[in-house]
Amino acid sequence: MVSNVFSSVLPPNWVDVWPSIPYVLAETPEADYGSFVLAGVLLTLVVIYTMSKLGGELSKRLDLPPVLGELVGGVIIGISALHLLVFPETGAAADSVVMSVLQWLGNLDGEAVAHIFASQSEVIEVLAELGVIVLLFEIGLESDLRELTKVGYQAAVVAVVGVAAPFMLGTVGLVMLFHVPVIPAIFAGAALTATSIGITSKVLSELGHLKSTEGQIIVGAAVIDDVLGIIVLAVVASLAKTGEVDLMNVVYLIISASAFLIGSILLGKFFNQSFEAIASKLQTRGALLIPAFTFALVMAFLANVIHLEAILGAFAAGLVLDETDRRKELDQQVMPIADILVPIFFVTVGAKADLSVLNPAVAENRAGLIIASFLIAVAIVGKLVTGWAVFGKPGVNRLAIGIGMIPRGEVGLVFAGIGAASGVLSKPLEAAIIVMVILTTFLAPPLLQWALKGQPATTPEPTLSVK
Amino acid sequence: MVSNVFSSVLPPNWVDVWPSIPYVLAETPEADYGSFVLAGVLLTLVVIYTMSKLGGELSKRLDLPPVLGELVGGVIIGISALHLLVFPETGAAADSVVMSVLQWLGNLDGEAVAHIFASQSEVIEVLAELGVIVLLFEIGLESDLRELTKVGYQAAVVAVVGVAAPFMLGTVGLVMLFHVPVIPAIFAGAALTATSIGITSKVLSELGHLKSTEGQIIVGAAVIDDVLGIIVLAVVASLAKTGEVDLMNVVYLIISASAFLIGSILLGKFFNQSFEAIASKLQTRGALLIPAFTFALVMAFLANVIHLEAILGAFAAGLVLDETDRRKELDQQVMPIADILVPIFFVTVGAKADLSVLNPAVAENRAGLIIASFLIAVAIVGKLVTGWAVFGKPGVNRLAIGIGMIPRGEVGLVFAGIGAASGVLSKPLEAAIIVMVILTTFLAPPLLQWALKGQPATTPEPTLSVK
Repeated sequence: MVSNVFSSVLPPNWVDVWPSIPYVLAETPEADYGSFVLAGVLLTLVVIYTMSKLGGELSKRLDLPPVLGELVGGVIIGISALHLLVFPETGAAADSVVMSVLQWLGNLDGEAVAHIFASQSEVIEVLAELGVIVLLFEIGLESDLRELTKVGYQAAVVAVVGVAAPFMLGTVGLVMLFHVPVIPAIFAGAALTATSIGITSKVLSELGHLKSTEGQIIVGAAVIDDVLGIIVLAVVASLAKTGEVDLMNVVYLIISASAFLIGSILLGKFFNQSFEAIASKLQTRGALLIPAFTFALVMAFLANVIHLEAILGAFAAGLVLDETDRRKELDQQVMPIADILVPIFFVTVGAKADLSVLNPAVAENRAGLIIASFLIAVAIVGKLVTGWAVFGKPGVNRLAIGIGMIPRGEVGLVFAGIGAASGVLSKPLEAAIIVMVILTTFLAPPLLQWALKGQPATTPEPTLSVK
Repeated sequence: MVSNVFSSVLPPNWVDVWPSIPYVLAETPEADYGSFVLAGVLLTLVVIYTMSKLGGELSKRLDLPPVLGELVGGVIIGISALHLLVFPETGAAADSVVMSVLQWLGNLDGEAVAHIFASQSEVIEVLAELGVIVLLFEIGLESDLRELTKVGYQAAVVAVVGVAAPFMLGTVGLVMLFHVPVIPAIFAGAALTATSIGITSKVLSELGHLKSTEGQIIVGAAVIDDVLGIIVLAVVASLAKTGEVDLMNVVYLIISASAFLIGSILLGKFFNQSFEAIASKLQTRGALLIPAFTFALVMAFLANVIHLEAILGAFAAGLVLDETDRRKELDQQVMPIADILVPIFFVTVGAKADLSVLNPAVAENRAGLIIASFLIAVAIVGKLVTGWAVFGKPGVNRLAIGIGMIPRGEVGLVFAGIGAASGVLSKPLEAAIIVMVILTTFLAPPLLQWALKGQPATTPEPTLSVK
């Protein structure tokens, strides 16, 4: 034995000591599950990216916002159609095509599949949540606070009316007409408040109206709307968690959400200096990105901990870091991260929405369909009226302003996604919100073109800084 | 009632239909867990990024590779010390400081904490796995296949000896001297084969020796070593999964791993053209990144499915895309993603390693300590001998070449991480490998400086393209 050579350096009883250290060969099935969970996540991500790109590119070709195609792509692979991407809340492991593929590849039993399905779904859901956190961080980074002070009272009034009118109409209507319980009604009402500026500003720009009075009011109002909408969402989501609507609670939540946002922006001025000092001292890779990303995660965690929404924190972090000198560089580094995480969110929202509950062929679905129609009507009317909130501008095209505020886009989807995750929305209500987002986003561009027809264009604006 | 207004558009029995749609208010605790799982993931990521930056920056200041600091940072917050980052395999939920914080914040009971702990650990583990996949994808992207053909026979011989010698010495030694079972012994032997070129090329560059004969041989051998090492890892990890070492299996695995790598590179030429065609046609965000990333995930999935390692697929994908014309652009977009995902892997490897099993004060640990010392000795000797494998270069500094191959760096950690995840390594063996990686990486720079002392520098090379 060669071991004799080593006998002088080893303790005399080392062979006896040795067996006490366990050298168990992977008998735990957990380790094997892990490899399948990873395989499930990889396959699911491939499906998500493929559909998001197919949908997004098709949308783009049709002159619609790519996010709409990503959402529809999600619907197609989700519970409503192909069952490539399903979640434990909406179906069993046996419903998932990805799980069937893994089961076939790995020759797995039912118990193993159930375990792997639960784990990989959890991972995809957290990735989707990280996606919406990064999305709001990016929106915050791109929102310029100084712009907010410039857009003036007109835009502020339009924004407030555009949040209040659909919220009130939607919530009160759902409760009074359809006897929907208060909390889901409030959530659905809140989902009506969002405004997505991307699609409108693109149409305005193409028609040469972005710098017109109407264009400036719409863009300004949409920026303010982002801030108001996120406060509304934080308040409503928190109500959904506690399940109670008492006035004190609402007042507390509105104050805490506003205080959180305003407070972090004010404290942000000081933080910004430390941030830049830290980032400039770091010499390893990710010197700018990691502190910024960590800051966004800390803010998201804090907002989550004080019972607001994680995305409120991420948005506040973005607003704060928007003020740094190295914003452009940061923007550029956050973009690839958003590119890979945000589609997971949009596709997941689509995949979870069970649109079959709105199938008109089934008699029980009629009530849900009527609610969906009601929501769409309120979504349009509630924003249309904002045009008449403009004061002191006699010649302004009030109809165009109202139409410009109609598309809900990605912000509406954030509401639907958070609502579905919190479990507060019934399936028909969730599906109705998704359909509302799709329709308002589809309808706005042709309506806007029609409303602006014959109106002379101002100077065209080829490059767009507003999202 | 206002509802009368709508009675004409509603079916007469709509109020009866309505209650059949469930409007259950989130009574499911799952939804609440979800919020805490997200909070746990956010807090864990904040801890990981903070420690990885602290460790990485400190390392950099000490002229050591940042990855070493990230690893040590992981050890500090992991099971060995602060218990900020622990996993179900290495400890209970009660051991986790992050879980205690969540429990205190959310007033959770033990069952809820156990559930949240399991879920958030699963998410962090998959993020770490995605991290190592992105790392290997990036290494593949940065490895130039054309360089491989240029470095010549000298480098190839050094690489093969540098893989074979430590593998043989380590595996045979562990089995013969320490009666370690064959599979863990093979895995530990394989972990000794890695070479990390980063640290050596930096020292060589600082001393002005990067373009010397020694420098060229070391760099070339390390590039070949990367490829050989990943094949060895894929084979060994697959052996660990089946738990059997029969010759046919080994031969099959070596052939399939090599065929996978070579096959994908050959097919890659065709794929590259389709890839560029697709990427140039896409008009939405992530037009270059998403197809590339999806390709890497598909390859990782395929490698996983044919019982090799996911990272082999990601590495092959990187090698293939390295040939595209848009490589630089892609590199730049993959970098931020690597910046946020890769540290999760390195810190997790450190956090999972229980170095307390090497505490010399405890008598039972002595056998483990002796094995660790043996591994370190083999790690150094097995690479030192490579210098004497160089032929036909009489004046060459063989000692310097041998020393230059010693540091294991991030590649050694990939072995340790995969080994720990597969469950095949005992705790002392895992800890021994981590200590081996740390020590070899620490020791190489001063030894190399000493070996090259007095030798005239060739032209200095300030910029470095090799990682």
